[in-house]
Amino acid sequence: VNADSWAKMGPGVEFDLIRRMAARWGDLVQDAGDDAAVLDVRHGSRLVASTDTSVEGVHFRREWLSLQEIAYRATTASLSDLAAMAAEPIGLLIAATIPANVADSIEMLADGIGQAAREGGCPIVGGDLTGGDRISLTMTVLGAAPAPVGRGGAKVGDSLWVTGRLGGPGAAVRALLAGELPSAEHLPRFSHPVARLAEARWLAEQGATAMIDLSDGLSSDARHIAAASAVALEIDVASIPCVPDVTARAAASSGEEYELLVTMPDEFDGAGFNEQFEIPLTRIGTVVEGPAAEVIFLEGGERVDLAAGYDHFSA
Amino acid sequence: VNADSWAKMGPGVEFDLIRRMAARWGDLVQDAGDDAAVLDVRHGSRLVASTDTSVEGVHFRREWLSLQEIAYRATTASLSDLAAMAAEPIGLLIAATIPANVADSIEMLADGIGQAAREGGCPIVGGDLTGGDRISLTMTVLGAAPAPVGRGGAKVGDSLWVTGRLGGPGAAVRALLAGELPSAEHLPRFSHPVARLAEARWLAEQGATAMIDLSDGLSSDARHIAAASAVALEIDVASIPCVPDVTARAAASSGEEYELLVTMPDEFDGAGFNEQFEIPLTRIGTVVEGPAAEVIFLEGGERVDLAAGYDHFSA
Repeated sequence: VNADSWAKMGPGVEFDLIRRMAARWGDLVQDAGDDAAVLDVRHGSRLVASTDTSVEGVHFRREWLSLQEIAYRATTASLSDLAAMAAEPIGLLIAATIPANVADSIEMLADGIGQAAREGGCPIVGGDLTGGDRISLTMTVLGAAPAPVGRGGAKVGDSLWVTGRLGGPGAAVRALLAGELPSAEHLPRFSHPVARLAEARWLAEQGATAMIDLSDGLSSDARHIAAASAVALEIDVASIPCVPDVTARAAASSGEEYELLVTMPDEFDGAGFNEQFEIPLTRIGTVVEGPAAEVIFLEGGERVDLAAGYDHFSA
Repeated sequence: VNADSWAKMGPGVEFDLIRRMAARWGDLVQDAGDDAAVLDVRHGSRLVASTDTSVEGVHFRREWLSLQEIAYRATTASLSDLAAMAAEPIGLLIAATIPANVADSIEMLADGIGQAAREGGCPIVGGDLTGGDRISLTMTVLGAAPAPVGRGGAKVGDSLWVTGRLGGPGAAVRALLAGELPSAEHLPRFSHPVARLAEARWLAEQGATAMIDLSDGLSSDARHIAAASAVALEIDVASIPCVPDVTARAAASSGEEYELLVTMPDEFDGAGFNEQFEIPLTRIGTVVEGPAAEVIFLEGGERVDLAAGYDHFSA
C-alpha cells in the first residue's frame, strides 16, 4: 500500500528508480510522497538521530563486496549508531548517489538496504537519489529512546563489557589486502555485520552508564568513552573475546566491528544476557580514576602499549 | 559551550575539520559527542524529516557560486522541505564529502551552512565528514509540526496561491549558461534563496490544505499537488507573480525557487499576510475537478500548453 504513494510522485528517471527500489521494499516503505516524511516519537521518548556516509574508494571497494553487501553494510553501520544509544529505530532516510551502471542493478542496492532495515525493524521513510561518478550512500537513521545512553556516563568502579567476538572484520580486510580469500569465519563478520539493537536496549534496562559501537575499533572507541566520561579505562587484553585465528591485540584494533562497548554498574554480573541473545557478553575491564581519555591495556598485570591503529591491518 | 563537546571527540584530521566548523557555528551547535544526536519533539507535535543531496557538477557548478553560497543553498533547500510541511526546524545533520582543497577553506563552507541554519532557526545537531573527489553535501533536516501539511489535501473549490515572485533563479541560470553576468535582480534569487518557514506556518494556521515548495518549478510541482490530491489545478498564467524582465511562462518553469505553492480554503482572501511578511502572496488559480495530476494553464481564458520543463532555460 505504502509503495503506491511513491508511484504517485510523477515521471522521470529518478522516480522510476525509486519505484523499482520501493517495489523491493514492500511494506518496509512508509512514505506519503510529501516534501518530507512525517513520523511520531512516542510520548516520553527522546528522538535519536545520526547520519553516516559510505563512499566508494574511501569506505569500501567494489571488488571486495557485492552491491547488495555494500548497501547492507552502509545501512547497518547507521543502525549501529542507534544501537549505541539504546534507541529503537523509527525511520531510515536514504541519500544515494549512483553511477549509471549501478542504476541498472538498482534492485541489488535496494535489497541490501531492505535486508538491513528489516533486520533492524526500521521503516524506510524517505530519501534522495542522484547520479554521479561513484557510489555514495548517506544513511540517516531516526530512533526513539526513553533514556538514550551516551558516552559520558561511565563512573569509576563500573565494569567494562563488550558484545560478540572481535577481530573478524580486521582479519577479513587483511586477507583481502593480501589478495587472499578471507576465511569463512572472518568474511561474514566483514560483509554482514549486525547492529546490536536488542542487546543495547537490554543493557540499557540493566543500567548501562555509557555505550559506544566499535566502528573505529576497541582501542579508539574506548578512548571516546574515557574522554567523554573523564575517566580512565583498564582493559585486560587476555579477556578480549576474539574470533578464531585472531590475536587479542589484533582484535583490539579491528574496526567496523559494530559490536558494543559498554560500562555497567559494579553490581551487574552479566546474568540473563546468554538466555536472551546468541552472542557472548564479556567483561574486559574496569573504569578507574585517571587522566581523561586514557585507556590502559594490561597483559599479565603489565601495562602494554596498544596505540589506536597500531595493529591496524597487521597480524 | 556545546562546541566544546566536539573538541572531546579525539584526534585526527576529520575531527580537526569538524572543530574548525564548530568554531564558526558557535552556539548553533547542539552536540554531545555521542554516537547520535538526542533531540526532543514537543508533545503534540509530529516529527518531520527530509534528506537532500547536492553534488558538484550535478546540482551546482563551482564556477557559478562561492563555497559559502553552495553550502548556504544546500542547507536552505533542505530547510525549504520543512517549510513545505509547515514544520519548525529542530535539527540539521550534515553529511559532507569534500576534496582536500575545500578542506583548506572549510570555514567558508561552515559559514554558508551556519548562515542558512541561523536564518532558519535550526540547531546543528550532527554530521559526518568524508574526503572525496568532489563536493557532495547531504543535508538532513528534522522539524516538528502540530499538523504537518502534505501535498494530498487540496479540495475542489480551494484557491491556489504562491509566495514571492518567480523566475529569478531560471533567469540567473540562463545568463550564466550564456556566459553573462545575471542581473542584480535575478542573481540573489539564485545564490541566496530563502526558506519560507514562517510564511508556511502562518498559512497552515489559516487552514492550508496542501503545500509544496517550488524546487522543481511551478508547472512540475503543481502536478505533484494535483496527483497527490486527485484533483486538477487551473492556473491563470497572467496572474503568476514574476521578477522583473521574466515572462510568466518562463517563471512557470523556473526551478529551485523555494517559494511555496499552497491551496487554501475558498474563504481565505490573503488578508493579514502583507502585514506579517515582506514578500507578496498571490492567488494564481483554483482547484477544480478533473483527471488526477492535470494542471491547466489559462491565458485570456484559453488553455495553453506549458509542459513541465518546456520553457526551461529559454527566454
